[in-house]
Amino acid sequence: MISKKTEESIQKGSAIRAMFTEGKAMAERYGAENVYDYSLGNPAVPAPEKLKGVIADLVKETDPLELHGYMNNAGFPDVRETIAADLNRRFKTSYDWAHIVMTVGAAGGLNVALKTILDPGDEVIVFAPYFGEYKNYVANWDGALIEVAPDLLTFQPNLSVLKEKITPKTKAVIINTPNNPTGVVYSEETLTRLGEILTEAEKRVGHAICLLSDEPYRELVYDGAAQTFPAKNYKDTIVCYSFSKSLSLPGERIGYLAVSPEIEDGERLLEGLTQSNRVLGFVNAPSLMQKAVAQCLSEKTELAFYDHNRKCLLESLTLYGFTCVKPEGAFYLWMKVPGAPEEQTVSAEAEQAFVDRAKAERLLLVKGSAFGCTGYVRIAYCVSPEMIERSLPSFQALAKETCR
Amino acid sequence: MISKKTEESIQKGSAIRAMFTEGKAMAERYGAENVYDYSLGNPAVPAPEKLKGVIADLVKETDPLELHGYMNNAGFPDVRETIAADLNRRFKTSYDWAHIVMTVGAAGGLNVALKTILDPGDEVIVFAPYFGEYKNYVANWDGALIEVAPDLLTFQPNLSVLKEKITPKTKAVIINTPNNPTGVVYSEETLTRLGEILTEAEKRVGHAICLLSDEPYRELVYDGAAQTFPAKNYKDTIVCYSFSKSLSLPGERIGYLAVSPEIEDGERLLEGLTQSNRVLGFVNAPSLMQKAVAQCLSEKTELAFYDHNRKCLLESLTLYGFTCVKPEGAFYLWMKVPGAPEEQTVSAEAEQAFVDRAKAERLLLVKGSAFGCTGYVRIAYCVSPEMIERSLPSFQALAKETCR
Repeated sequence: MISKKTEESIQKGSAIRAMFTEGKAMAERYGAENVYDYSLGNPAVPAPEKLKGVIADLVKETDPLELHGYMNNAGFPDVRETIAADLNRRFKTSYDWAHIVMTVGAAGGLNVALKTILDPGDEVIVFAPYFGEYKNYVANWDGALIEVAPDLLTFQPNLSVLKEKITPKTKAVIINTPNNPTGVVYSEETLTRLGEILTEAEKRVGHAICLLSDEPYRELVYDGAAQTFPAKNYKDTIVCYSFSKSLSLPGERIGYLAVSPEIEDGERLLEGLTQSNRVLGFVNAPSLMQKAVAQCLSEKTELAFYDHNRKCLLESLTLYGFTCVKPEGAFYLWMKVPGAPEEQTVSAEAEQAFVDRAKAERLLLVKGSAFGCTGYVRIAYCVSPEMIERSLPSFQALAKETCR
Repeated sequence: MISKKTEESIQKGSAIRAMFTEGKAMAERYGAENVYDYSLGNPAVPAPEKLKGVIADLVKETDPLELHGYMNNAGFPDVRETIAADLNRRFKTSYDWAHIVMTVGAAGGLNVALKTILDPGDEVIVFAPYFGEYKNYVANWDGALIEVAPDLLTFQPNLSVLKEKITPKTKAVIINTPNNPTGVVYSEETLTRLGEILTEAEKRVGHAICLLSDEPYRELVYDGAAQTFPAKNYKDTIVCYSFSKSLSLPGERIGYLAVSPEIEDGERLLEGLTQSNRVLGFVNAPSLMQKAVAQCLSEKTELAFYDHNRKCLLESLTLYGFTCVKPEGAFYLWMKVPGAPEEQTVSAEAEQAFVDRAKAERLLLVKGSAFGCTGYVRIAYCVSPEMIERSLPSFQALAKETCR
């Protein structure tokens, strides 16, 4: 009964989700405390305490016909107004309520945006390593995913390569800072230069190039660094935001798109986004959660929790002999698979062998190939500090086996 | 920036949503109490009182990491188990938890199902009149929508025409009982015959034909009639359910797919559905609401409320001279546009003129063309009885102008 397209897609599968499932099976076999699952970006910090009261009050005090009812497909106007005002206050932008479209998470938002702007064959540029699902999202709308190879020294987007990759078919560029899987935060210099390159390219190709800024980790930056907001550096930007990480609500599927006020014909674009939100079957973002997050915009996740994990892992793994990219944001550690000289990386086979060895130590790590960058693994440290402590001997054993 | 496909789609728009927006504008101009908006299927009965306590308890007592966290993309296993058991109890079926995939409403579920089974050019058969969004859902996956003309006497699906329309390209048939927009409930005879025709057709075309049974109105049947469950009459059925109407939660986007246990290679299909749920950007159905509805499966909406509206409108409109299909379920009244002889219907222009006349009386009705059946209007009576009372003089005036 399944379509050919789905059949192929199942065969490729999701490496991350496969790990998650495998982890559950291993937990049953060895006991949950003896499996060190670093595979999934599922926040370990609970949702802010305030949210409980907010939900309880909403349920008690709001007319259920409004609270659970249909609204404009783009979301409740008051919620959109509150979010616009919050962005304007924090980033000195000038959104108004009509620029915000509430979505079923950032994954929903990205699909809504891509569906709205892509015709079959249109090209979408991503910077490796990138969140593997982008490939599926672009394929959903018959777009072509164009990869820009990584800068293995800095893991900042490789902008000189970007320039070469832009063609008259380029319709969008996806960025993700703080980055999944590397933990790198794009520098102001990178974002400024990116904006310049895209602005020039738009003139060259003769049509708009949409920057899709996927920002679920926006608030997760360490060492007191400022939060970046790429939309400030390029007018044709759609922000794809999710409350999954900042408020620890990944299961609730709540986020938004913010369309830059300066986009030409933005009203039409917003109409398109709203319509795609509807016809894709989302219809609208979950209503109760829309109202709940609007009251929690000033809440912060427990950054110190992740920061502790970050420091502990980075320090220990480096000590054991691994080479890691120092994470500046998000909750991922990007570690090189040992066995290749400094500026080179191991093969896909060697990467898989390393992941398998890690699994033998009951460490679940996701291979870099899943992010379009072979020779690395992603370690999601949104886990309990106790699990990290318990897992260190396994990492040490793995290092002994694999590092020289 | 918008794609050609979206541009076309915007131009077609949604007649229903356009009405909804127009209604809001008219309400501002004339005062909400002077506009009679019969355009949208937004339940007027509040969610069951029990739901408040359920949500409050869930928030108070459940670990927020579980309540708001990721789970298997198909939903919480315990929720799926509860839903399977409830279906089995009510309809003597044999689902188990693995046959249920929690979705972002039935609209999300239909898209997930269609994406999973359709290759470009595959045909999906619908029975006119049908919910207009089916056209968009099928177009999302480059399928071809094939309409079966209505039986204007009974508005049961026209099964002899169905037989002719099935080709080797037929991949799915969508049914919707109780029906939107007619309010008709498919008879047991219809469903039995439908199952027979599809079973024969599968043999003829040499592949499975999926029956997508869109059942958001399943529990809304009047006059003590039994609820029907089409999956019982044909093994290759996917039930697409939503709690939007039965629990008055349309804004929350919560529903499920139920895959018949007898479907060949059902495990693969379920894998495909789960994956489509993920890659479409839904990821999973909203987590808190999954747990909430699982505790409210025995709750019932206030059927008497809608029944009162149904009787009042049917009686009054018939008295004024209009011809209506007697609704047996859902909350829609299907009324013929006056001006055509008994077994004929007016033109699209005359239909539009009638809708405009109704609007001049501040009555917002959706034209039949939006449902692939020109010459009728849909009256959504999920509104307050007071609004109906207030609107009757307008209907009477409209009848005077248009009925002979």
